Parts: sequence; structure tokens; C-alpha cells
Amino acid sequence: ALFGAGVAYAADELLELQKNPKDWVAPTGDYANLRYSKLKQITTENVGKLAPVWSFSTGVLRGHEGAPLVLGDVMYLHTPFPNIVYALDLNNDGKIIWKYEPKQDPSVVPVMCCDTVNRGLAYGDGKIFLAQADTTLVALDAKTGKLVWSVKNGDPSKGATSTAAPHVFKDKVFVGIAGGEFGVRGSITAYNIKDGSLAWRGYSMGPDSDTLIDGEKTTHLGKPVGKDSGLNTWEGDQWQIGGGTTWGWYSYDPELNLVYYGSGNPSTWNPSQRPGDNRWSMTLWARDLDKGTVKWVYQMTPHDEWDYDGINETILADQTIGGQARKTLVHFDRNGFGYTLDRVTGELLVAEKYDPAVNWATKVDMDKSSPTYGRPQVVAKYSTQQNGEDVNTKGVCPAALGSKDMQPASFSPDTGLFYVPTNHVCMDYEPFRVSYTAGQPYVGATLEMFPPAGETNMGNFIAWDARVGKIVWSNKEQFSVWSGAVTTAGGIAFYGTLEGYLKAVDLKTGKELYKYKTPSGIIGNVMTYQHKGKQHVAVLSGVGGWAGIGLAAGLSKSNEGLGAVGGYKALSDYTALGGVLTVFALPDSALPIIAPAN
Amino acid sequence: ALFGAGVAYAADELLELQKNPKDWVAPTGDYANLRYSKLKQITTENVGKLAPVWSFSTGVLRGHEGAPLVLGDVMYLHTPFPNIVYALDLNNDGKIIWKYEPKQDPSVVPVMCCDTVNRGLAYGDGKIFLAQADTTLVALDAKTGKLVWSVKNGDPSKGATSTAAPHVFKDKVFVGIAGGEFGVRGSITAYNIKDGSLAWRGYSMGPDSDTLIDGEKTTHLGKPVGKDSGLNTWEGDQWQIGGGTTWGWYSYDPELNLVYYGSGNPSTWNPSQRPGDNRWSMTLWARDLDKGTVKWVYQMTPHDEWDYDGINETILADQTIGGQARKTLVHFDRNGFGYTLDRVTGELLVAEKYDPAVNWATKVDMDKSSPTYGRPQVVAKYSTQQNGEDVNTKGVCPAALGSKDMQPASFSPDTGLFYVPTNHVCMDYEPFRVSYTAGQPYVGATLEMFPPAGETNMGNFIAWDARVGKIVWSNKEQFSVWSGAVTTAGGIAFYGTLEGYLKAVDLKTGKELYKYKTPSGIIGNVMTYQHKGKQHVAVLSGVGGWAGIGLAAGLSKSNEGLGAVGGYKALSDYTALGGVLTVFALPDSALPIIAPAN
Ligand SMILES: O=C(O)c1cc(C(=O)O)c2c(n1)C(=O)C(=O)c1cc(C(=O)O)[nH]c1-2
Ligand SMILES: O=C(O)c1cc(C(=O)O)c2c(n1)C(=O)C(=O)c1cc(C(=O)O)[nH]c1-2
Repeated sequence: ALFGAGVAYAADELLELQKNPKDWVAPTGDYANLRYSKLKQITTENVGKLAPVWSFSTGVLRGHEGAPLVLGDVMYLHTPFPNIVYALDLNNDGKIIWKYEPKQDPSVVPVMCCDTVNRGLAYGDGKIFLAQADTTLVALDAKTGKLVWSVKNGDPSKGATSTAAPHVFKDKVFVGIAGGEFGVRGSITAYNIKDGSLAWRGYSMGPDSDTLIDGEKTTHLGKPVGKDSGLNTWEGDQWQIGGGTTWGWYSYDPELNLVYYGSGNPSTWNPSQRPGDNRWSMTLWARDLDKGTVKWVYQMTPHDEWDYDGINETILADQTIGGQARKTLVHFDRNGFGYTLDRVTGELLVAEKYDPAVNWATKVDMDKSSPTYGRPQVVAKYSTQQNGEDVNTKGVCPAALGSKDMQPASFSPDTGLFYVPTNHVCMDYEPFRVSYTAGQPYVGATLEMFPPAGETNMGNFIAWDARVGKIVWSNKEQFSVWSGAVTTAGGIAFYGTLEGYLKAVDLKTGKELYKYKTPSGIIGNVMTYQHKGKQHVAVLSGVGGWAGIGLAAGLSKSNEGLGAVGGYKALSDYTALGGVLTVFALPDSALPIIAPAN
Repeated sequence: ALFGAGVAYAADELLELQKNPKDWVAPTGDYANLRYSKLKQITTENVGKLAPVWSFSTGVLRGHEGAPLVLGDVMYLHTPFPNIVYALDLNNDGKIIWKYEPKQDPSVVPVMCCDTVNRGLAYGDGKIFLAQADTTLVALDAKTGKLVWSVKNGDPSKGATSTAAPHVFKDKVFVGIAGGEFGVRGSITAYNIKDGSLAWRGYSMGPDSDTLIDGEKTTHLGKPVGKDSGLNTWEGDQWQIGGGTTWGWYSYDPELNLVYYGSGNPSTWNPSQRPGDNRWSMTLWARDLDKGTVKWVYQMTPHDEWDYDGINETILADQTIGGQARKTLVHFDRNGFGYTLDRVTGELLVAEKYDPAVNWATKVDMDKSSPTYGRPQVVAKYSTQQNGEDVNTKGVCPAALGSKDMQPASFSPDTGLFYVPTNHVCMDYEPFRVSYTAGQPYVGATLEMFPPAGETNMGNFIAWDARVGKIVWSNKEQFSVWSGAVTTAGGIAFYGTLEGYLKAVDLKTGKELYKYKTPSGIIGNVMTYQHKGKQHVAVLSGVGGWAGIGLAAGLSKSNEGLGAVGGYKALSDYTALGGVLTVFALPDSALPIIAPAN
């Protein structure tokens, strides 16, 4: 139903599987990244009676991102480094069917910028795919956990790591790369799910032969990008150590056969060291699934000066905008703007601030005839480039971790709104000159983080209308909401908080209907499935990630953890480390008398 | 009510506090170790509706033993090494009020025989007492967590550690010592709670001046023990490295002013290296609270040949036996016998097997006129002494970890029965010659463990009538029940399983009324308290301890972990490490309409 019924595609097992709302077969639920479930046994009326029904400790401390998969009677659960995979028996309260524990060189841990996180598993062709921290992509037999094939995607000794979930689209599995803080050049790689053979790789920067961009056919805001755009917007060879990594969530439109994702910040964080627009860092991409060729790109933050990685999820929702039905792509960028694009053409439809605190730019220029069309209008005072090296630019909002980081939002087709876990944090940012050594941090800035002036809440959970670019309602949260949301046909949005609460709110009003304090702070994504006639909600807790790096890595100086330690210091009053999956359901007495159709 | 109302004692704050069933002020709930609560909001009728209401991850992996304390609105929670203490706000789902994290030399970890466990905290005089692994006893201000005083109780470089909970009785805090597997000589030490000054120390072995035994006044089975009994039942100086450690639960009768506890195995595990009865290892003790002088002793397993430590809890219950009201002490020993003694005189009243599998002895000689009165009648085939060094004695039941280990049982005055978490495990035991080096393991035996022949369940949860020494009902458990039980006036016994289930059973029938899979295997003790009108049940999960040492320490050879690794191998199909407190209550809809008196 996501892509219009009745259209026939070449055999696509996963597309079929994701039509069954009882399962949760992809890291974000479906190809479109909607994070919406048709399940509706749990409703706004009865969600207050929700309660945990079983739980499972992963045996690993530090930050637990992502969510498990559910296929039939089996749940597949992953952990941060050392990246254990468990197959758990849903018929037996999570008894372990098999366990896969890779042997990885622990020297990868210090080159992981923002905790030892891993964002989850993918399923396809009877296999479970895991992207290990050390960039090894492994395919495991879903029944037995036995290794079917594996392939190495990058070089951790140069700072390349994997934190993103692999994504299976049709007959390929897609993996990105992390390491922007080590000067790693980003790329997306497609492997054939059958045997792990390479289908294609497209870099974020470099000559067209590397980026798979066609200077004449690939468009940016409707115009061809020209030859070697990923080279000639850089000075010298800086593009080779220029970042633009690809550690977020990918989506796929099977009708258009296009894969969508965003690329991260240019390296280093000291903008004076890399003149130019630094294309195609900070960019939304549309690539052909089979060949990797680029249909369109859109660079949100040319020549980044604040570490506003563009990697956040791309949500493929069909919306009517200005009376016109559009196949849209919606993206809540780190830079604080919520973008709505036509995903067929890459046309920019809406770009508005989704946190009123955003101050580094006044707006995005929407005048198609303007020479700065599509570019953010930077406020000089907050320009770390204009203020220069070794100058502390103060009070920039959002902070480097953005108005939202990788925690994915959700779209409810029922309300037509997006439900967005956000950060509400500002920063001081002082760039300094740094030289490149392979495998060593290549950051070049010192940061402090804090809530916007006069405020104490460091997060909001908001409902957003992407047709017009407006906040519909906004709930304050003490800390940034570092957990992915899910919406359901029961009229509920679920998300987790850094203190550790799983919360359920009314999609229409934002009213809090239920909360439960899980064992640790939540940076995982909530998911839902149905088993034996009961709808379940599951979430990983286990504080960490960039926001929780102070707790996760035992840091205490305020500017450590690239500034997050000071900003989130108060977290230690609420929670301690520990990875636990908690699974919720309604007690029998609260079930509707007539079972719903799903 | 525990010790007869109306009797006035010298100011004893803790005795008063423990009369309030809403709190849980001592590691075992009260002086008598009953582990019984008068709370009855949760009943056999409504316990099926119990559900977790909040949870808290401790941030520590490995085995979590013991239980939190509750005083008013604050819960005090401890962890295994590094022995963090948290004060948690019950008015705010366990928000952290303060945290105390000692700095300990990690070299203590390898000298902890059976995981890095710690069995809990004690309260007294406005202070929270913690016995750190490195034997430092610290007194913390209960309001702020600030260190008030600390004292060092032993030398970890010689293998001495602390795992037991401190116990506050009246104006003193009592600590034991662990390290029997390193030849540490056991002792109990009383410190004054005001300032940590030494009140007295009584050793398990040595001259009367060390043991505080009076050869003429101290009795064993009604007869004076004679001079230097802790010396002359040993060959040479072996008593100095002879074990008899004191790492279990202590109890106190304020009317008699006697402190009760048991001492552990003699060192080494190779009996041929230590001829004699090895007094007073494997012994129940009654000491004067103020002076430490010994009223009576009873040695259960003279000249131990199987590691049947006598440290298990001593439960002080008043019972009518053979028509006579008795102040009794009940003790379920590792050796498989359930003992009932007169706690005033030390008279042996009942000694019967509480697991029918026990085979190393036929019975305890109850004939007062017999020369072997009070001694177990050892079966030659299972005597590792008689079979000799380097001979594998096969099929001994119970295994070294006993028919029960330190997991404490509970007494319900309502039913007059004891509820006992038990092991149902046998072993092969091959002693070998070992030489003593301070700080090095001093074990001298190789073990394998397995369920009794023809059976698969490695544990039972039983109801025991200590007046006659009979099992009333017995529930099979797949693994040993390594969790302490609690009974309530609601007619329920709660306990945890190594797979991770919290279970509630009917005191009368053993019928299972509720179970919930907590995040990890349970080796903690269940406790209950009332807060804001609601009865809560709380339990630490976090698999480990001796039974879980394979998981906790990452061991895989079957005879590692002194034989436990092979015996409990299947545990890894159910659970992984992780310390989490889960707190349960009834939903409002299940509460009785009229609030109970408590
Ligand atoms: O540039 C990179 O390659 C890179 C990688 C990662 C990562 O892999 O987790 C993060 C970031 N950048 C980053 O900028 C960021 O805000 C961030 C947050 C987190 C997290 O998991 O909480 N990871 C990352
Ligand atoms: O002899 C000793 O000093 C000593 C200490 C300990 C301990 O401190 O945990 C155990 C034992 N022995 C022991 O025999 C035993 O069965 C045992 C089980 C456990 C546990 O926590 O699961 N500890 C110990």
C-alpha cells in the first residue's frame, strides 16, 4: 500500500514482507522509512494500560541504537561493539535460538567518533545482514546464525568504521561508511545479497567516475551539475580526506527504482582549511538502485561551518502540496531546516526551521531566479568561517549535533503529519588548524553545548506539517530526544527519552498517554509487531551515542566528547549504562473484545 | 512482633524500623532473617496482574546478588565490583539522588572465587554500610552519600575479599571475610557503627584467644568444647591457612543478645592435606553481641571432603516441636541437610535431607548417647578422603555448591513453613595435592557438575516443615534456584530463576501464579516494600555467581569455574549479562477496593 497497490515489480521478497504489519522486516520498518505501523490493537484509549511483558539484557554496556527485526516467531537483536547478534524466540519470552559474536580487533573502538553504536540489522533472502564496527559486512543464515558470506567495506586503521544499519532493497544490500572525524571519504556501496559480490560503489566526492555522477544528466535544483563537481568545489586534494560520510538511514522507491540518503560533514571542522562548496558533502542523493548513477542531488549546507551532517533519514511520503499530489521526500536536517522535496526531480518544495531556536541562518532562499537559490542565508555573527580560526563563535543554534541527529522521525498517513524527536541545543564553536594523519582524529574545533538562552529543555518532540513547513504541536523534553519514533494506526506516537522513559503520545494533540522508565536511557528506536494475536511495542534502552558519550565513555570535562559531555552532564542524575530490550503489550483484560482485522 | 511485643531493649533504632513492613531496612529484611513481609496488598488472587512499574540498570555487568534497602522514599542499591552504591528516589521512578563509586584496586577481581558479587548494604545510625570487595568497610551518610568513616578488614593481596552484606545489629556492624579458596582464615568482626572502631573479632580457628571460645563454657551439642578446640583438631599450623570463612548472612536475637552465622569449608579442598575434624570450619555459631564470646557451636560437616561450606543463612523462627514451644534456628546447609536447633542452647532437634538426591551421607546420627552423635554418617563410596588423592570420586550429591548455596530461604509464620531455593546437582570430585602461596588459589580438587542421574532439572523450589524435617511440596526448576525468596502475608512466595524469571507461587500449594522474564538471570534476592499506598516487589537480575560463572567470566571448559561451567552450560541459551533492578506493582485497576491496614 505504500507505493500504490496493483503495480507489479520484479520479484522483491522484502517489499512483499513489509506489507505484513505483524512483522518488522527492515531497520526502519519499510523501504520508505515511514516508521508507521498499521497495527491498532493498542489505541489512545487503552495505551495507558500497557506494561512490559518480557525483557532481555544484551550483555553489553554503552549506547544501544536501532531496533530489532521481527520475522514470524523470531526477533533479531544486535548490540553495539562487539556487535553480537541474537535470534530470540518470541514463543518463549526471548529464549536465545542462536547467537553470533564476531571477533573484531578492539582497536576499532577508539576510531568511533560518537560511541560504539550500531544501528541495526537488515533481512533479505533468508539472511540477516550485520555491518560490524570494523566495516565487515556479514550475511548470516537467518535460521542458524551461520556465516554465509562476508566482505570488508573499509579500513578501520584509517578511521573508517560502520555504525549504520545495512539496508536491503530488492536484490542488493547497501552499506555506508563512518569516519568524517577522521577524514574518511564517504561512499555508499551496493553488494548483491546472494553472494556479497560488489554491484557498485558511489563516493560523495571525487571525479565523476568515483561519484557516479553524470555532469549532464545529474541535476542540482533542476540544473545539470557539470563535470567533476565533486572535485572542483574543493581546493587541491582536500576532497580525498574530505568526509561526506554516509552513516544514516537509506530509503528506496521501487517505482522510481531510486535509493535515497544523505551525506555528512566535510572534513575538517575548521572551514578555513577547505575553501569551496565542498560538494557533495551535506547532500541529499537519489541514485539508481541497479547502477548507482545519480539522478539528482541537493546540497543543504554548502561549505559547512558547524558540523551539520546531512545524513538524517529521508522519508518517502506522498503528499498533496499546493493542491498538487507529489511524491515527496521529507528530511529533517541537522542544520535545523525541515526539507520537503519532490523525490522524482529533486525540486525543493519546502525548507523551514523545525526548531524556532535555529539562528545560524535566517532562511533558505526559495527564489528560483536568485543566484543563491536553495542556499541557507548565513548570519555573519554565527559564521565560524567569517569569524575565523581560533575565534570562539558563541551561541550558535543548533549545536553541532543538530536540531535532530540520526534518531529517525515517523510519518503517519492517518494524520498526514511527521513526528520528530528533536534536539534543542546551542553551542560555542572555535575552529583551529589541524593536520591530517591517517587514523588520527581530524576535527579541528573545540565545542561547548548548552540549551538555548533562557531555556532549560534540551529537546522537544514535535508534530510537523511538511506540506507547509510548520510545527503543529511541540512537547518539551528535559533532554534531547535521541530515540527514533514510531507511529501506529492506533493513533499513537511512541518514542524514548534519554532519562529512560518509553512514552506514548496522542498523534493529534501530543498528550502524554503512557510512560515507563526502562532500565537505561533510550537512544534506540521504538518498533511494534504483532505476535500470537497481541500487538507488542519494543525498545532498546542503553544510554550512549553522542549525547550520552559522557556516561558511555566515562568522560567528565565539559568540552570532551566534542562538547556533548558538558551539555548532557545532568543525565548522570537519571540513568546508568546497560543494554536492555523491553517488550510491552496490553494485559488480556485490556484487549478489545473483538480482535482487529490485523 | 518477631521477638514478642512488650519487651523493652536498650535503644535499638533498627529493631524499631524493621517493625514497619513498608520499609526493607536490612539485607534480609530483619534481624531474624525471616525474609517475611506483612504486606498483603498483593494476594494470591491478584498477583497474576502484577507488572513492572519501573526499572534501573546499574551500569555493571556480572553477577548481581542481594537486594536493595528501602527507607521511606529512598531506595539504596549496590552493584558487584566496583561496588557502586546508588540512592534512588522512589517518588521519581528511581532518579539518582546520589551515587558513591569507590576506587578499588582491580587486582582484587582475580582473587574473588565465585564472581565479583556483593550481597548488599546495611543501614544504621543514619549511615549506609558497604563492604567493598577489597574488604574496606565504608559508612556513608544516608542523605548525601558522603563518606563518614572507613576501615580495612582484610588483605586482598593474600586472597581476602568481601562479598557478604554487612549486618547492623543494635550499635554494631558485623562483617565477615571471604577467601576460603585462598587459604584465608575466617573471622567475624564487629565495628561500632558510630565511628568504625573495632569492638571485637572472633576467628573460626586458632587458639581460644582468637576464636573467643571458652573451653569450659562454650558448648558443642551440650558439652563444653575444651581448651583450644580450634587448634588441636588440626595438624600443625594448617589452621592458619585453614579457611572457615564467613561470607554468608548473619542473624541476631535481641532477647538472647546472640549473633548467629555459619563458617565455611576448611582449606584446601584436598582433605588428605588436613587430617582432623578441622574445627570450627563448617560450623554454626552463637556469639554474644557485645563481647563476641561463644555460647555454643555446632559443626555440621567435620573434616569436610566436598566443599560443603556451612555459611548459609540462619533463620530464627519460633516453632512448636514435639508439643514444646522452642526458640529455634533453622539452617539449610550446603551438605543437603536441613537443621533445626534450639537457638538458646544449640541443641540439635532435626537434621533431615531437604533434597532426596543427597547421597554422601545416609543421615545425621541423632542418638545422644552415640559416640558419633550429631555427625553425618558418610557413605564410603562418596568419601573423597577414603578414595584418596588423585582418585575421581564420582556421582556425589550434592555438588560442591550444595543442595543450597548462599541464596537465602524464607519463613512464613502464616503457614509455619520454610520456602527454600535449592540446587539439585551432583559432581565428580578429584582431590590433588596443592601447596600454599599467599594470594594464589589453594583449591586442590578438580570437579565436574551435572544433574542427578536420570534427571534434567538442576533445581527445586520447595516448602519445608522444619519441625519434622519434611518436604511439603517441591517445584522443579530447570536450573538451580540461585535467588533468595521472600514470603508475604498475601500468601505468596517470590523467587527468581537463573533464566531470568521472577516467579510468584502459592505458599500453600506451590502453584505458579505469575512469572515475568527480567532482563537477565536472577541471582538476587526478592524483596517487597510499600510506597505511596502501593505494595512493590523488587528484584535485581544480572546472571553470575558461582552457578553463572561461565557467563560472568567468559569461561567455557566444563571443569572451569570449579566445575560449574559445564553444569550450567545451557544457561547461555536463555540469558546474557547485565545488572537491572525491576520493580513490580499491581495496576490501579487490580488494587483491592478497601486499602489494607498496612
Ligand atoms: O562523520 C561521521 O562519520 C560521523 C559518524 C557518526 C557515527 O558513525 O556514529 C556520527 C557522526 N559523524 C556525527 O556527526 C554525529 O552527530 C553522530 C551522532 C552519533 C550517535 O550515534 O549518537 N553518531 C554520530
Ligand atoms: O570459601 C570462601 O571464602 C567462599 C567465598 C565465596 C564468595 O565470597 O562469594 C563463595 C564460596 N566460598 C563458595 O564456596 C560458594 O559456593 C560460593 C557461591 C558464591 C556465589 O556468590 O554464587 N560465592 C561463593
